[in-house]
Amino acid sequence: MNYSIIRYVTGHTMLLEGVLMLPSCLVSILYGESSAAIALALSATLCAVLGVLLKPRKLKNSTFFAKEGYVTVALCWMVISIMGSLPFLFSGAITNPIDAVFEAVSGFTTTGASILNDVEALPKGILFWRSFTHWIGGMGVLVFLLTLLPMTGGSHMNLMKAESPGPSVSRLAPKVQTTAKILYKIYIWMTVVQIILLLLGKMPLFDAMTLSFGTAGTGGFGILNDSIGSYSTYHQVVITIFMILFGINFNAFYFILLKQIKEALAMEEVKAYLMVIAAAVLAITVNIAHLYDNVLVALQQSAFQVASIITTTGYSTTDFNTWPEISRTILVMLMFIGACAGSTGGGMKVSRFLIWFKTVTKEIRLYLHPKTVKQIKMDGKTIAPEVIRSTNVYLVVYVIIFAASVLLIAVDNFDSTTNFTAVAATLNNIGPGLNQVGPMSNFSCFSNFSTVILTIDMLAGRLELFPLLLLFSKDTWKKF
Amino acid sequence: MNYSIIRYVTGHTMLLEGVLMLPSCLVSILYGESSAAIALALSATLCAVLGVLLKPRKLKNSTFFAKEGYVTVALCWMVISIMGSLPFLFSGAITNPIDAVFEAVSGFTTTGASILNDVEALPKGILFWRSFTHWIGGMGVLVFLLTLLPMTGGSHMNLMKAESPGPSVSRLAPKVQTTAKILYKIYIWMTVVQIILLLLGKMPLFDAMTLSFGTAGTGGFGILNDSIGSYSTYHQVVITIFMILFGINFNAFYFILLKQIKEALAMEEVKAYLMVIAAAVLAITVNIAHLYDNVLVALQQSAFQVASIITTTGYSTTDFNTWPEISRTILVMLMFIGACAGSTGGGMKVSRFLIWFKTVTKEIRLYLHPKTVKQIKMDGKTIAPEVIRSTNVYLVVYVIIFAASVLLIAVDNFDSTTNFTAVAATLNNIGPGLNQVGPMSNFSCFSNFSTVILTIDMLAGRLELFPLLLLFSKDTWKKF
Repeated sequence: MNYSIIRYVTGHTMLLEGVLMLPSCLVSILYGESSAAIALALSATLCAVLGVLLKPRKLKNSTFFAKEGYVTVALCWMVISIMGSLPFLFSGAITNPIDAVFEAVSGFTTTGASILNDVEALPKGILFWRSFTHWIGGMGVLVFLLTLLPMTGGSHMNLMKAESPGPSVSRLAPKVQTTAKILYKIYIWMTVVQIILLLLGKMPLFDAMTLSFGTAGTGGFGILNDSIGSYSTYHQVVITIFMILFGINFNAFYFILLKQIKEALAMEEVKAYLMVIAAAVLAITVNIAHLYDNVLVALQQSAFQVASIITTTGYSTTDFNTWPEISRTILVMLMFIGACAGSTGGGMKVSRFLIWFKTVTKEIRLYLHPKTVKQIKMDGKTIAPEVIRSTNVYLVVYVIIFAASVLLIAVDNFDSTTNFTAVAATLNNIGPGLNQVGPMSNFSCFSNFSTVILTIDMLAGRLELFPLLLLFSKDTWKKF
Repeated sequence: MNYSIIRYVTGHTMLLEGVLMLPSCLVSILYGESSAAIALALSATLCAVLGVLLKPRKLKNSTFFAKEGYVTVALCWMVISIMGSLPFLFSGAITNPIDAVFEAVSGFTTTGASILNDVEALPKGILFWRSFTHWIGGMGVLVFLLTLLPMTGGSHMNLMKAESPGPSVSRLAPKVQTTAKILYKIYIWMTVVQIILLLLGKMPLFDAMTLSFGTAGTGGFGILNDSIGSYSTYHQVVITIFMILFGINFNAFYFILLKQIKEALAMEEVKAYLMVIAAAVLAITVNIAHLYDNVLVALQQSAFQVASIITTTGYSTTDFNTWPEISRTILVMLMFIGACAGSTGGGMKVSRFLIWFKTVTKEIRLYLHPKTVKQIKMDGKTIAPEVIRSTNVYLVVYVIIFAASVLLIAVDNFDSTTNFTAVAATLNNIGPGLNQVGPMSNFSCFSNFSTVILTIDMLAGRLELFPLLLLFSKDTWKKF
């Protein structure tokens, strides 16, 4: 294990986090929140100092294997979560350290589940930081670092593979660093466009920025207690559209930038993703139409919730907890499907489902004609057998972690729907679940023990299980 | 597709079913239930006549490929279910044909879920038939037929593979027919021993027989409205032990018969199965101790429920619906694990879980050392890659069928725990679930539509998904 490079990357990540706290500090200063400003400045300084102390003076060896990649990503995410909780603690916004880490992890993993009962009481600077963590975590903090750090050889790819969501990572450019830069450019510009569109609807700048951060990262932290419920229909529609956009595989946008519209539209995953959204919106609209004044309102509400859940954003405009069971069930299913690979969304990812469906079809054919040899293809390209195998194993690990979490948080003795959807909402990085953790409630009801379990679930979900799992394997730490 | 052999096997299955109805008819005659006796005799005659009409005069071609094996098994199970529902309909015990088929499928698939509100009101002959279907379905009606029918070549194996539970079938003897005979001998003797032990505890013969049928097939239909609750502790303990025994891989019993005790004890699956039971009993006992007079009662109740659920029998002695959430959650997990492969129990099977755990461990190693080549072994033997692949695909199919079923039955607008556990209880062939379908309730609350869905789930669960799935593939019916 090359500990020196792990320290190098982790140290730089902390430094970067310190710098990223400064805008929030500035917000606090502008709003005259002296104690929040001090809390943020102090946290930023601590990040910077610890980061400098951690990173080695001189990098002896810059080789970086897959193993170091996973370990580094897992460790970095734990470190930024802990450091990211400091502003909450120092400002007194949250007093229990476990809750503060939960809130920070929920931010970075773009879950958006909160333990806060009254977000409106928070200082603006802290609210800004809370939403900004979504934006940082959405595209990936290490992917951001990649655009800045000079590193050699395959190192970049191994980091990127470990942090990017989806069964496999495709490079947009021959150099991974260039790929990371392209991704962040698209990400920044789309966020800016959303802010402008929200401003055009007369939303205050602060609201437009924080809500756009939450949309872009598919996070879901709101700045009002009723999430998005009190904004105008125009704003809700803009957010709906941008949630759906940020759930699309960013490769599609790159194709569009290159004016390869045909390639973008031909992406199987994107097509499937949009079809699932259309089907779900339609089914729910029909099912809830009688609850609203007219079909258009039902359609708008249904579209908002579907977009919010499938992209794992988690904003809400209405209490879908009170919708009929069939709509609730559809939303729970969407929680698991999630957005596209290579987007900022969470969940299992549409492309994994496509691979699973293709594997099943192939297996059925094998039952019938045991000697057929058939390869599984996506977008015309053969999927490597190891990607298929690891996608299948992913489901096994997912189910095991899911079941274990539901069992462990059952100690709090809530009903099974609460437990099931609490795990679903955290492991898929969504935010709200049903019943006790429904859209109009929050996660403050859980004991410290369960909060820790759900925190681990959020991290495991964001890093797609394996990096975190590897930390617990004794093989990882063995010298060889 | 060799239609002639499909007709041959299906015809014989119907004939056999007619014969198997006669003991129940005899019971009705002994108890002086004339109308039930007529209903059973009529059903038996219909089975025999249709069976004779269906089977071809002369078998042109006795070759039997894997494809025909799956299709035959799926069709036979549908046919015996429909014919098996006739006694309920003809006797007037159940008036809705959909409910009658549900009850018959629940019997043959050894689920034990009922739509009857008052089983005590049924004629004894009908109750006997109801429990006897468990016994027939437990070891497999086609496996039984194998012991009788003369067939050539690999035909037997392809039938047995399709009907026997578990990721792979091991032959106990070089000839499949001999294997089938050994299995049925063990099955019959164990059932007889249980009947004798129950009689020794002064249980009436009728009760001892029907309850033993339900235990042996891991079915779970009771003959009293409170299932097993009103029998003595001795009887409950005997049933607990036999439920656990019938959930063990029958290969272990064969090893014991051959005096190869060491081989029997070394079976990884059996060890894992017993360890899961021990752990679950212990955890639940601790969790529910305060609800009972003393720890021993809690232990006995916990052992009974754990054995009943993990073996997917579904008998109950108490309303575990009222237990604390952690015990309820453990029971729901056990629903999915199920019994050993090669037993009469349902669920996903312990051996599949072992294969999954081994696959995950191997995958983690591959992440760390991408170039390792490692084979997955069980009981010292390498598991064939296609068994591993099909076990992984099994999980995918399972999850898809599960999710689709939960979504479809949500139209009845029950709470999600009811829907989730109703599907879990039928797809895993258990019987009771939680809430509306808890141990003291039944499945009569569902609409016809949902009843059909749950009926399909029971069949899919018993036949381990693929045979039924193949029926819906257009490739199956293509001439080639």
